[in-house]
Amino acid sequence: MAAKIHRSGTSVITDMFPKGQVEFIHGETMTVNLWQFEQGCDVPPHQHPHEQIVHCLEGTFEVTVDGEVLVLGAGDSVVIPGGAEHAAHARTASRGIDIFHPVREDYRR
Amino acid sequence: MAAKIHRSGTSVITDMFPKGQVEFIHGETMTVNLWQFEQGCDVPPHQHPHEQIVHCLEGTFEVTVDGEVLVLGAGDSVVIPGGAEHAAHARTASRGIDIFHPVREDYRR
Repeated sequence: MAAKIHRSGTSVITDMFPKGQVEFIHGETMTVNLWQFEQGCDVPPHQHPHEQIVHCLEGTFEVTVDGEVLVLGAGDSVVIPGGAEHAAHARTASRGIDIFHPVREDYRR
Repeated sequence: MAAKIHRSGTSVITDMFPKGQVEFIHGETMTVNLWQFEQGCDVPPHQHPHEQIVHCLEGTFEVTVDGEVLVLGAGDSVVIPGGAEHAAHARTASRGIDIFHPVREDYRR
Protein backbone atom coordinates (compact mmCIF):
# COMPACT_ATOMS: atom_id res chain seq x y z
CA MET A 1 0.00 0.00 0.00
CA ALA A 2 1.37 3.45 -0.90
CA ALA A 3 1.13 6.48 1.37
CA LYS A 4 -2.24 8.18 1.09
CA ILE A 5 -2.64 11.92 1.46
CA HIS A 6 -5.89 13.54 2.59
CA ARG A 7 -6.37 17.25 2.03
CA SER A 8 -8.41 19.18 4.56
CA GLY A 9 -12.01 19.89 3.60
CA THR A 10 -12.26 17.44 0.69
CA SER A 11 -14.71 14.98 2.27
CA VAL A 12 -16.73 16.93 4.81
CA ILE A 13 -20.03 15.34 5.91
CA THR A 14 -22.66 17.78 7.20
CA ASP A 15 -25.70 15.51 7.59
CA MET A 16 -24.53 13.23 10.39
CA PHE A 17 -25.18 15.75 13.23
CA PRO A 18 -27.65 18.66 13.13
CA LYS A 19 -25.09 21.08 14.59
CA GLY A 20 -21.83 19.61 13.44
CA GLN A 21 -19.64 18.41 10.65
CA VAL A 22 -17.24 15.51 10.42
CA GLU A 23 -14.56 14.35 8.01
CA PHE A 24 -13.18 10.82 7.99
CA ILE A 25 -9.78 9.48 7.02
CA HIS A 26 -9.51 5.70 6.89
CA GLY A 27 -6.23 3.83 7.09
CA GLU A 28 -5.80 0.06 7.14
CA THR A 29 -6.18 -0.26 10.91
CA MET A 30 -7.40 3.15 12.13
CA THR A 31 -9.99 5.81 11.33
CA VAL A 32 -9.54 9.52 12.03
CA ASN A 33 -12.51 11.87 12.39
CA LEU A 34 -11.91 15.61 12.12
CA TRP A 35 -14.95 17.13 13.81
CA GLN A 36 -16.38 20.57 14.33
CA PHE A 37 -19.47 21.21 16.48
CA GLU A 38 -21.55 24.27 17.18
CA GLN A 39 -22.30 25.19 20.78
CA GLY A 40 -24.94 22.85 22.17
CA CYS A 41 -24.33 19.97 19.77
CA ASP A 42 -25.05 16.62 21.42
CA VAL A 43 -23.73 13.22 20.48
CA PRO A 44 -26.21 10.83 22.11
CA PRO A 45 -25.01 7.92 24.27
CA HIS A 46 -23.70 5.04 22.18
CA GLN A 47 -21.09 2.33 22.22
CA HIS A 48 -18.90 0.39 19.81
CA PRO A 49 -16.20 -2.22 20.17
CA HIS A 50 -13.55 0.20 18.80
CA GLU A 51 -11.16 1.90 21.19
CA GLN A 52 -11.50 5.67 20.69
CA ILE A 53 -9.25 8.58 21.63
CA VAL A 54 -10.84 12.05 21.59
CA HIS A 55 -8.51 15.04 21.29
CA CYS A 56 -9.91 18.56 21.72
CA LEU A 57 -8.34 21.31 19.58
CA GLU A 58 -10.64 24.23 20.40
CA GLY A 59 -13.52 25.00 22.72
CA THR A 60 -14.92 23.32 25.83
CA PHE A 61 -16.09 19.82 25.07
CA GLU A 62 -17.78 17.43 27.47
CA VAL A 63 -17.36 13.67 27.13
CA THR A 64 -19.32 11.31 29.39
CA VAL A 65 -17.94 7.78 29.68
CA ASP A 66 -19.83 5.16 31.70
CA GLY A 67 -21.55 8.00 33.60
CA GLU A 68 -18.34 9.96 34.36
CA VAL A 69 -18.33 13.52 32.96
CA LEU A 70 -14.94 14.67 31.63
CA VAL A 71 -14.47 18.26 30.47
CA LEU A 72 -11.87 18.82 27.77
CA GLY A 73 -10.23 22.07 26.73
CA ALA A 74 -7.78 22.69 23.90
CA GLY A 75 -5.00 20.09 23.98
CA ASP A 76 -6.79 17.64 26.29
CA SER A 77 -7.52 14.04 25.33
CA VAL A 78 -9.53 11.14 26.63
CA VAL A 79 -9.06 7.43 25.95
CA ILE A 80 -12.42 5.63 25.73
CA PRO A 81 -12.11 1.86 26.08
CA GLY A 82 -13.78 -0.30 23.46
CA GLY A 83 -17.34 -1.16 24.51
CA ALA A 84 -17.75 1.71 27.00
CA GLU A 85 -20.95 3.75 26.70
CA HIS A 86 -20.13 7.36 25.91
CA ALA A 87 -21.77 10.61 24.85
CA ALA A 88 -20.55 14.13 24.09
CA HIS A 89 -21.75 17.70 24.41
CA ALA A 90 -20.22 20.88 22.99
CA ARG A 91 -20.37 23.44 25.84
CA THR A 92 -18.96 25.97 23.37
CA ALA A 93 -18.24 25.77 19.66
CA SER A 94 -15.59 23.05 19.52
CA ARG A 95 -13.17 21.43 17.15
CA GLY A 96 -11.20 18.23 17.57
CA ILE A 97 -10.07 14.84 16.39
CA ASP A 98 -11.33 11.34 17.15
CA ILE A 99 -9.27 8.28 16.40
CA PHE A 100 -10.50 4.72 16.30
CA HIS A 101 -9.07 1.24 16.12
CA PRO A 102 -10.04 -0.80 14.24
CA VAL A 103 -11.34 1.07 11.17
CA ARG A 104 -14.92 2.38 11.45
CA GLU A 105 -16.26 0.38 8.50
CA ASP A 106 -19.71 1.81 9.36
CA TYR A 107 -18.39 5.29 8.56
CA ARG A 108 -17.18 4.50 5.05
CA ARG A 109 -19.37 6.04 2.36
CA MET B 1 -10.51 -0.26 31.89
CA ALA B 2 -11.92 3.16 32.84
CA ALA B 3 -11.70 6.22 30.61
CA LYS B 4 -8.31 7.93 30.94
CA ILE B 5 -7.94 11.70 30.62
CA HIS B 6 -4.70 13.33 29.51
CA ARG B 7 -4.22 17.05 30.13
CA SER B 8 -2.19 19.01 27.63
CA GLY B 9 1.41 19.72 28.62
CA THR B 10 1.65 17.22 31.48
CA SER B 11 4.12 14.78 29.87
CA VAL B 12 6.13 16.79 27.35
CA ILE B 13 9.44 15.23 26.23
CA THR B 14 12.05 17.69 24.98
CA ASP B 15 15.10 15.45 24.56
CA MET B 16 13.94 13.21 21.71
CA PHE B 17 14.58 15.75 18.92
CA PRO B 18 17.05 18.66 19.07
CA LYS B 19 14.47 21.09 17.63
CA GLY B 20 11.23 19.62 18.77
CA GLN B 21 9.05 18.38 21.55
CA VAL B 22 6.65 15.45 21.72
CA GLU B 23 3.96 14.26 24.10
CA PHE B 24 2.61 10.72 24.08
CA ILE B 25 -0.80 9.35 25.02
CA HIS B 26 -1.06 5.58 25.08
CA GLY B 27 -4.34 3.70 24.85
CA GLU B 28 -4.77 -0.07 24.76
CA THR B 29 -4.38 -0.33 20.98
CA MET B 30 -3.17 3.11 19.82
CA THR B 31 -0.59 5.74 20.67
CA VAL B 32 -1.04 9.48 20.01
CA ASN B 33 1.93 11.83 19.70
CA LEU B 34 1.31 15.58 20.04
CA TRP B 35 4.36 17.12 18.35
CA GLN B 36 5.77 20.57 17.88
CA PHE B 37 8.86 21.26 15.76
CA GLU B 38 10.94 24.34 15.11
CA GLN B 39 11.68 25.30 11.52
CA GLY B 40 14.35 22.99 10.10
CA CYS B 41 13.73 20.08 12.46
CA ASP B 42 14.46 16.76 10.75
CA VAL B 43 13.13 13.34 11.64
CA PRO B 44 15.63 10.98 9.97
CA PRO B 45 14.43 8.10 7.77
CA HIS B 46 13.14 5.20 9.81
CA GLN B 47 10.52 2.47 9.72
CA HIS B 48 8.36 0.50 12.10
CA PRO B 49 5.65 -2.13 11.71
CA HIS B 50 2.99 0.26 13.10
CA GLU B 51 0.60 2.00 10.75
CA GLN B 52 0.93 5.77 11.30
CA ILE B 53 -1.32 8.69 10.40
CA VAL B 54 0.26 12.15 10.50
CA HIS B 55 -2.09 15.13 10.84
CA CYS B 56 -0.69 18.66 10.48
CA LEU B 57 -2.26 21.38 12.65
CA GLU B 58 0.02 24.31 11.88
CA GLY B 59 2.91 25.13 9.57
CA THR B 60 4.31 23.49 6.45
CA PHE B 61 5.49 19.98 7.15
CA GLU B 62 7.18 17.63 4.70
CA VAL B 63 6.77 13.88 4.99
CA THR B 64 8.74 11.57 2.70
CA VAL B 65 7.36 8.03 2.35
CA ASP B 66 9.25 5.45 0.30
CA GLY B 67 10.97 8.31 -1.57
CA GLU B 68 7.77 10.28 -2.28
CA VAL B 69 7.74 13.81 -0.84
CA LEU B 70 4.35 14.94 0.50
CA VAL B 71 3.88 18.50 1.72
CA LEU B 72 1.27 19.01 4.43
CA GLY B 73 -0.39 22.24 5.51
CA ALA B 74 -2.83 22.81 8.35
CA GLY B 75 -5.60 20.21 8.22
CA ASP B 76 -3.80 17.80 5.88
CA SER B 77 -3.08 14.19 6.79
CA VAL B 78 -1.04 11.31 5.43
CA VAL B 79 -1.52 7.60 6.06
CA ILE B 80 1.85 5.81 6.27
CA PRO B 81 1.55 2.04 5.85
CA GLY B 82 3.25 -0.16 8.44
CA GLY B 83 6.80 -1.01 7.38
CA ALA B 84 7.18 1.91 4.92
CA GLU B 85 10.38 3.95 5.25
CA HIS B 86 9.57 7.54 6.11
CA ALA B 87 11.18 10.78 7.23
CA ALA B 88 9.98 14.29 8.02
CA HIS B 89 11.16 17.87 7.78
CA ALA B 90 9.62 21.03 9.24
CA ARG B 91 9.76 23.63 6.45
CA THR B 92 8.34 26.11 8.94
CA ALA B 93 7.63 25.87 12.65
CA SER B 94 4.98 23.14 12.74
CA ARG B 95 2.56 21.46 15.09
CA GLY B 96 0.60 18.27 14.61
CA ILE B 97 -0.52 14.86 15.75
CA ASP B 98 0.75 11.38 14.93
CA ILE B 99 -1.30 8.31 15.64
CA PHE B 100 -0.06 4.74 15.66
CA HIS B 101 -1.50 1.25 15.81
CA PRO B 102 -0.51 -0.84 17.65
CA VAL B 103 0.78 1.01 20.74
CA ARG B 104 4.35 2.32 20.49
CA GLU B 105 5.70 0.29 23.40
CA ASP B 106 9.14 1.73 22.58
CA TYR B 107 7.79 5.21 23.44
CA ARG B 108 6.60 4.35 26.93
CA ARG B 109 8.80 5.81 29.66
